[in-house]
Amino acid sequence: MSVKVPSDIEIAQQAKMLPIAELAKEWDILEDELELYGKYKAKISLDIFKRLQDKEDGKLILVTAINPTPAGEGKSTTSVGLGQALNKIGKKAVIALREPSLGPVFGVKGGAAGGGYAQVVPMEDINLHFTGDMHAITTANNLLSAAIDNHIHQGNQLRIDARQIVWKRVLDMNDRSLRQVVVGLGPKGNGFVREDGFMITVASEVMAVLCLANDLMDLKERFGKMIVAYNMDGDPVTAADLGVHGAMAMLFKDAIKPNLVQTLENTPALIHGGPFANIAHGCNSIMATKLGLKLGEYLITEAGFGADLGAEKFLDIKCRYGGLKPDAVVVVATIRALKMHGGVDKKELGEENLEALDRGFANLEKQVENVRKFGLPVMVAVNRFVTDTEAEIQLLIKKCEEAGVEVALNEVWAKGGEGGIEMAQKLISLVEREESNYKPLYDMEESIPEKVNKIVTEIYGGKGVVFTAAAKKQIKKLEELGLDKLPICMAKTQYSLSDNPKLLGAPKDFEITVREVKVSAGAGFIVCLTGDVMTMPGLPKVPSANRMDIDERGQIIGLF
Amino acid sequence: MSVKVPSDIEIAQQAKMLPIAELAKEWDILEDELELYGKYKAKISLDIFKRLQDKEDGKLILVTAINPTPAGEGKSTTSVGLGQALNKIGKKAVIALREPSLGPVFGVKGGAAGGGYAQVVPMEDINLHFTGDMHAITTANNLLSAAIDNHIHQGNQLRIDARQIVWKRVLDMNDRSLRQVVVGLGPKGNGFVREDGFMITVASEVMAVLCLANDLMDLKERFGKMIVAYNMDGDPVTAADLGVHGAMAMLFKDAIKPNLVQTLENTPALIHGGPFANIAHGCNSIMATKLGLKLGEYLITEAGFGADLGAEKFLDIKCRYGGLKPDAVVVVATIRALKMHGGVDKKELGEENLEALDRGFANLEKQVENVRKFGLPVMVAVNRFVTDTEAEIQLLIKKCEEAGVEVALNEVWAKGGEGGIEMAQKLISLVEREESNYKPLYDMEESIPEKVNKIVTEIYGGKGVVFTAAAKKQIKKLEELGLDKLPICMAKTQYSLSDNPKLLGAPKDFEITVREVKVSAGAGFIVCLTGDVMTMPGLPKVPSANRMDIDERGQIIGLF
Repeated sequence: MSVKVPSDIEIAQQAKMLPIAELAKEWDILEDELELYGKYKAKISLDIFKRLQDKEDGKLILVTAINPTPAGEGKSTTSVGLGQALNKIGKKAVIALREPSLGPVFGVKGGAAGGGYAQVVPMEDINLHFTGDMHAITTANNLLSAAIDNHIHQGNQLRIDARQIVWKRVLDMNDRSLRQVVVGLGPKGNGFVREDGFMITVASEVMAVLCLANDLMDLKERFGKMIVAYNMDGDPVTAADLGVHGAMAMLFKDAIKPNLVQTLENTPALIHGGPFANIAHGCNSIMATKLGLKLGEYLITEAGFGADLGAEKFLDIKCRYGGLKPDAVVVVATIRALKMHGGVDKKELGEENLEALDRGFANLEKQVENVRKFGLPVMVAVNRFVTDTEAEIQLLIKKCEEAGVEVALNEVWAKGGEGGIEMAQKLISLVEREESNYKPLYDMEESIPEKVNKIVTEIYGGKGVVFTAAAKKQIKKLEELGLDKLPICMAKTQYSLSDNPKLLGAPKDFEITVREVKVSAGAGFIVCLTGDVMTMPGLPKVPSANRMDIDERGQIIGLF
Repeated sequence: MSVKVPSDIEIAQQAKMLPIAELAKEWDILEDELELYGKYKAKISLDIFKRLQDKEDGKLILVTAINPTPAGEGKSTTSVGLGQALNKIGKKAVIALREPSLGPVFGVKGGAAGGGYAQVVPMEDINLHFTGDMHAITTANNLLSAAIDNHIHQGNQLRIDARQIVWKRVLDMNDRSLRQVVVGLGPKGNGFVREDGFMITVASEVMAVLCLANDLMDLKERFGKMIVAYNMDGDPVTAADLGVHGAMAMLFKDAIKPNLVQTLENTPALIHGGPFANIAHGCNSIMATKLGLKLGEYLITEAGFGADLGAEKFLDIKCRYGGLKPDAVVVVATIRALKMHGGVDKKELGEENLEALDRGFANLEKQVENVRKFGLPVMVAVNRFVTDTEAEIQLLIKKCEEAGVEVALNEVWAKGGEGGIEMAQKLISLVEREESNYKPLYDMEESIPEKVNKIVTEIYGGKGVVFTAAAKKQIKKLEELGLDKLPICMAKTQYSLSDNPKLLGAPKDFEITVREVKVSAGAGFIVCLTGDVMTMPGLPKVPSANRMDIDERGQIIGLF
């Protein structure tokens, strides 16, 4: 990182992209299986699975991280750079990532798809409407909402209890004013008045279903199972009861197909689906992951937040529903972030601090240990920053050696694939050396408290879980409905292994309090909320939107 | 129509479509100017205008109609069939149509893009997400909404009067519960509480702007001018004041490009934009129309509702802003609909009724006269039904002869282009025989009351216009703001020449009451509302969505 690296959008706009049809051909995708969206994006027909059914799957590599800090870790950048590096040394690697949500682009975030010389392109398209998947989700979600209120307005044959409607409307926009609303005001023809709220599109269960479905019929069936409300007897009312799950699935005739784009070095990237990582499982679609396994010798994918949330859900939810067996896990860290875990303030990260690094290493060590609990080979990837000192690097390497975990430094942000060759070589050697003995953490048949307790004690390192009275009542209800034998989806702060965002490093002796338990019956998991989860962000004082523009040649400005 | 015609979707699904890249090549569109969306849809880059700037424009033909009745007229079917027929007899004809809104597909309407053997395909794609234009409009509209509430929440530097916010949120869904809502409920962090409402996406001024813009910079400038609220001094607050018009234009980097699809007989169809025909002008984009004029010898386009609304707005608003000069107008009628205008009940349309036809002809005659007031050659196209008797047909022909207007019967619904050859030949002969002396009805510099009065007396055949006290106040305000020198966009019932939907035929001696006057400063017109306009439809007791489905092969069911 001693070189001057231009801004992400500058690099992205100067990329030498291959026409996507050409890239597809190189990667054994037939012309008939490809649907172009412009010259550099395409959807891939699910028919490809039939043709490739006898082809051996590649190695499944999960990229995860320590608990995120404001210092930045670079999980996506590492995923992209690792894929580029593998291709550079002659391995066929494909990347599978989540697709970004449009709303946050206008807020604080701006656009993103990796960074520096490890990005996915065309960056503008991926960050704006892309191939319309988000819009399909918004539409399907809101069709179901309209169907609920229409059903009540037209006589309410299903006896929906308007006080117990759990399905919210969505928009792909950061819009705080829509968090809590009252709908149905005005004359009789406008329906019944009730309280409602909007979430951002990616928080919709429709998104989680898209990402956990194995095919179109599975998608439709899961849509049908989604619980939208309870009736006057307390029984669930589903999308199938309202008869619109078929129309919802119809809206996904194209959106169900994984999207193909490329990295700056022409490595194929499948970008498909991007659910919340708190109230949902935070991974790209099973279909994209499976497709990547068919196309490459290595499929590199990632999961949201740190390994305690992202990897745990990837391994306990996604792998279970997809029948996936990971071969290795890469845990991303930065020296800066580890120093924050060791107690250093963000403003002082530029200075060498070996004591803090030593203390903060505990977080990385715990996340490595967590991965091993699933029976998986693991290595550490350190994303280098210019401020990292030689002494800090040596200390980190020594600590990893002591913990018995392989470590590789990388400079993919500044150098692209070239900067990740050592990391790629160590990964190959790890996969060849150690066998994966993947098994989920818990059995789905266990009770909800048993499952949550295992996650808290074994993964978070806490001493146990406390359920509030409300949560206990909700668990009882789910047990009565026979909806408790599902994987757990923890909604917890991403910043700490505990449920207190200020407890960095590797805290101990803490309890996790579950305040709310609810089922996402279509997605197929039970959400346990440990605090308030923001499902509709707001815009900041000066939104990113205010710097964004387009010039007369159609060139986009300010999307970073 | 003596043949058995399968359902629209059956015909559409059996269509022999050309790959759109092949069709484009045949029609002189370069590969570089084409952006594919799958195999049968494409967007065309606006760069094409530069290449073709010296090419002579084709003839511009507007298809309009008598006032619509529940009997059906078939304006889109005639437009499509006319284009097919022209190509069949060796003329290069291109069609430009509005794109359908997704929301109503789930309501009563189902899908539509012409009918019978005069349809545009791929029907499923056009009716579902198509190329995402509607979603771009929804997003841009709602970004502006979020920016308004965020501005107020963050300190309200512009002193926006929350009681005078005129910008509404939109969704592309039939959802009556969203017509009147309260937003911003809950804690301080959710913003200020206020009343709001959602419209359906096509009712957004963003849609009208897309359709009246001549290029990307014009689009951005018009977005900037859109008035979203008034401040505490009563001055307008615009999208430019909020600084998000650039980001809004950015969202249209692809949506600004006209979409290319084809008819069942491989005639090119440009489908782009579809604004409301009451509070907006009801025509496809100027860019699509201009592109069609460059590509074909004939460009066939249509305008919403009957000629009193659709053609008037096409000629006074769209042609003015686009610098377009139409060459001829085709007025579509059916014998069934004319009998309804003559007083026959819908249930009795199957029986011959010469007296009613004679009476109802007055509506057609008035619409023909209206077209002539713009200095344009005009002909009548009669869409044949099996129930039409020979005596009725002869009477209609005789009446047209007496009125001095060319008439052609067509059977494009049952026979495709073959069924429209006579109509096409008569159109060619009309265009070659009569010169167009197109001029708008009024001068933009006239006062609002003067302009409206001209429309009411000359086009509707009424004796004058009455403005309510509220409307007068609004006119005064627009005059003070210097926003009154714009074309008029009448929002009136489409069923009658008057503002009373029950007055069929050609009523006389009526007055039109304008209840509300408001400006769409970005689109560039003044909306005069004569009654309540429904800008957010609801779903019926059994929505079309409930019969829609998709099977395991991805085949769509029930979209009709």
